[in-house]
Amino acid sequence: MIQSPRGTRDFLPNEMERRRFYEGILRQTILRWGFREIQTPIFEEAELFILRSGPNIINELYAFKDKGDRDIALRPEMTAPSIRAFVNSMSNDPKPIKIFYFGQCFRYERPQSGRYREFFQFGAEIIGSATPQTDAEVIAVALEMIRSLGLKEYKARIGHIGVLRRKLLNAGVPQDKMPEILQKLDKRLYEEAKPLLAAAGASEKDTESIIDLTGTVGGAEVLGKIDGDESAYLKQVLDYLSALGVDAPEIDLGVVRGLDYYTGMVFEVEAPALGAEKQICGGGSYTLSELFGGEKVFSTGFAIGFDRALLALEKEGSVYTPSRMDAYVIAASDEMKIRAFEIAGMLRRNGVSADVDIADRKMAKAMKHASSVNSKFVVIVGAEEMKTDSVTLRDMTSGEQKIVKVADLSKVIHH
Amino acid sequence: MIQSPRGTRDFLPNEMERRRFYEGILRQTILRWGFREIQTPIFEEAELFILRSGPNIINELYAFKDKGDRDIALRPEMTAPSIRAFVNSMSNDPKPIKIFYFGQCFRYERPQSGRYREFFQFGAEIIGSATPQTDAEVIAVALEMIRSLGLKEYKARIGHIGVLRRKLLNAGVPQDKMPEILQKLDKRLYEEAKPLLAAAGASEKDTESIIDLTGTVGGAEVLGKIDGDESAYLKQVLDYLSALGVDAPEIDLGVVRGLDYYTGMVFEVEAPALGAEKQICGGGSYTLSELFGGEKVFSTGFAIGFDRALLALEKEGSVYTPSRMDAYVIAASDEMKIRAFEIAGMLRRNGVSADVDIADRKMAKAMKHASSVNSKFVVIVGAEEMKTDSVTLRDMTSGEQKIVKVADLSKVIHH
Repeated sequence: MIQSPRGTRDFLPNEMERRRFYEGILRQTILRWGFREIQTPIFEEAELFILRSGPNIINELYAFKDKGDRDIALRPEMTAPSIRAFVNSMSNDPKPIKIFYFGQCFRYERPQSGRYREFFQFGAEIIGSATPQTDAEVIAVALEMIRSLGLKEYKARIGHIGVLRRKLLNAGVPQDKMPEILQKLDKRLYEEAKPLLAAAGASEKDTESIIDLTGTVGGAEVLGKIDGDESAYLKQVLDYLSALGVDAPEIDLGVVRGLDYYTGMVFEVEAPALGAEKQICGGGSYTLSELFGGEKVFSTGFAIGFDRALLALEKEGSVYTPSRMDAYVIAASDEMKIRAFEIAGMLRRNGVSADVDIADRKMAKAMKHASSVNSKFVVIVGAEEMKTDSVTLRDMTSGEQKIVKVADLSKVIHH
Repeated sequence: MIQSPRGTRDFLPNEMERRRFYEGILRQTILRWGFREIQTPIFEEAELFILRSGPNIINELYAFKDKGDRDIALRPEMTAPSIRAFVNSMSNDPKPIKIFYFGQCFRYERPQSGRYREFFQFGAEIIGSATPQTDAEVIAVALEMIRSLGLKEYKARIGHIGVLRRKLLNAGVPQDKMPEILQKLDKRLYEEAKPLLAAAGASEKDTESIIDLTGTVGGAEVLGKIDGDESAYLKQVLDYLSALGVDAPEIDLGVVRGLDYYTGMVFEVEAPALGAEKQICGGGSYTLSELFGGEKVFSTGFAIGFDRALLALEKEGSVYTPSRMDAYVIAASDEMKIRAFEIAGMLRRNGVSADVDIADRKMAKAMKHASSVNSKFVVIVGAEEMKTDSVTLRDMTSGEQKIVKVADLSKVIHH
């Protein structure tokens, strides 16, 4: 028996309806914030992702050669494609440009809880603006989207990559050694970071102070512990977030994010319900366009891990109840089969969601099917009732039955 | 400059909104008909598509080996994946099962007008029912979906693969020669079909009669020209279609469809506005499940080429007008910047779609941006007006300005 490929999923009707419901909530929210949707291809030139994430990304990509011998990869994320689309087709549009996207991404890794090889991201970018307001807008819409899903517990942490970068620079760490060290610090792997820092020329005192910095967590008051522009910048971000009505996120100068291309503010959102793999959103300000052949343009963006966000809702006990079809139409006898179709057609034209027996079933079996597809009502089309242009309407919740004129049927079903 | 891969497209905000609008119409229609959505992965084992379409399909697939050395292919269509999902996870569900799907498919071919390497299909299947009513439901919902898009001119043609198959059998053509001959007849390549028929043992008279049959086109009356069960069956399909309120489609016994797995009724819908490549929908009844390791189950399905359907609308002159954002909020001075954010946050919480200046612009430039993002209103937050908790509201269509209390702002903007 052929199965779906490892790490991928089939979404069956109830689950799919749940996913569309939550996708719809995220979409409504971000549209209200003045972002507009774009869509990029499922695959791109592999080079695009290497430029963004470095050559090691190739190990995690679904990469292949197409029949024209081009190196192609299924997208592992949608920031690089969005910025490529910006460079190709939107670079002359009035800025800032506020865009969002939703869709499948692909990562070749060992499947585990909440992590799939085909997974879904909902993300957004503001392109062409580098102000505290820009960062506040992005953080705020991300948090508002998560809130609108109905998630009860989640925690945002904001940092600034510039603080750590300057500290590393002052400690004598050369630019090219930074990415590896930042990655270790990002994962709080201090024992692995220490020898790297020493090898890069940092003194023991500087190393201690760097590690201390990544542990700096708290409210706006911890901004006093750092100096320079970053402190004033983050303070402004917090002020605009407060103006937008967002609860103050934690300041966490250890939020580094794995990637080299971030330039300033970085943030993450966690859902404690998920346990160890609890991050559901990450983002920050960056520049990428110049890597893809465009002008350097400052942007801020984020992506929500849609699968993990839904898993968090589930773990919190949130239940989605699938909608019910309005009516299932059954012919009481063979002569009524055409009539049953006429009534189903009429109901649908009137906006009633309706199904009709197509399997030539006897009444009892057809009733059972109506029940298994969870229809609110059953419409029984009998020869006797049709003489007065009427049908029997059965409420499948209460079990109540009544005779209803065909002309009134849509209205009665919609109350 | 990195571009999107050949034959793929970026959908920018206006076009994307248009696509979501029409996707939404199709979705609403088919949900009203009692179908429910499923989603399968973007890629599958390549074997799945070879089983459905024969080994030649490999030349048109985006096929590759994954890092586990498995033969993988981007899906070229969604019927095979849907039936695989049925065999894997839905085979014990009460039948008939009515499902639909929408998403990207991939075909490695030379890009041309309305044909892309990444394209979008909206399709549906009824699984586990083999009655004239089943076929009528499927044809009717396909036509109702196309109608609901607002397409003015389209033409459906219905045939029955059984008529031609029996005729070929009676002419002495062996089963294994049929697919190639049917493909030639499907494309009306009679001069290529003739030598194949002769080589397969068909007499000249039979060949003539077979070619004559594929030219049999007309209303219900042409059913008289064929005998056997197929005629009675198609007559019933027409009766149920009529009951559902669908205009009688043409009977065209030359509709063969390219594929071997069809078992009975086959249909196609064309949009003349498209010129030569005018087919926008195709479907029919088939069995596939037994090829994928399940029991043999009769199904009927169809797919609408979403890109071509939208192109047809465009060619007919149908225009989609993008929606407008409700309000763009501008601070009249630096001291009002936080106030502007408070008002944007308040508007959004009240369901007003709103953007706010994040680029620290002077008034004139900010107004220009509000106009370029096509906002209905501009909210100007000035220190003087804020003394009475008021702002200036400018209607961007009429140019009219008035002072409005902040507390009334959402109501006034929503009328």
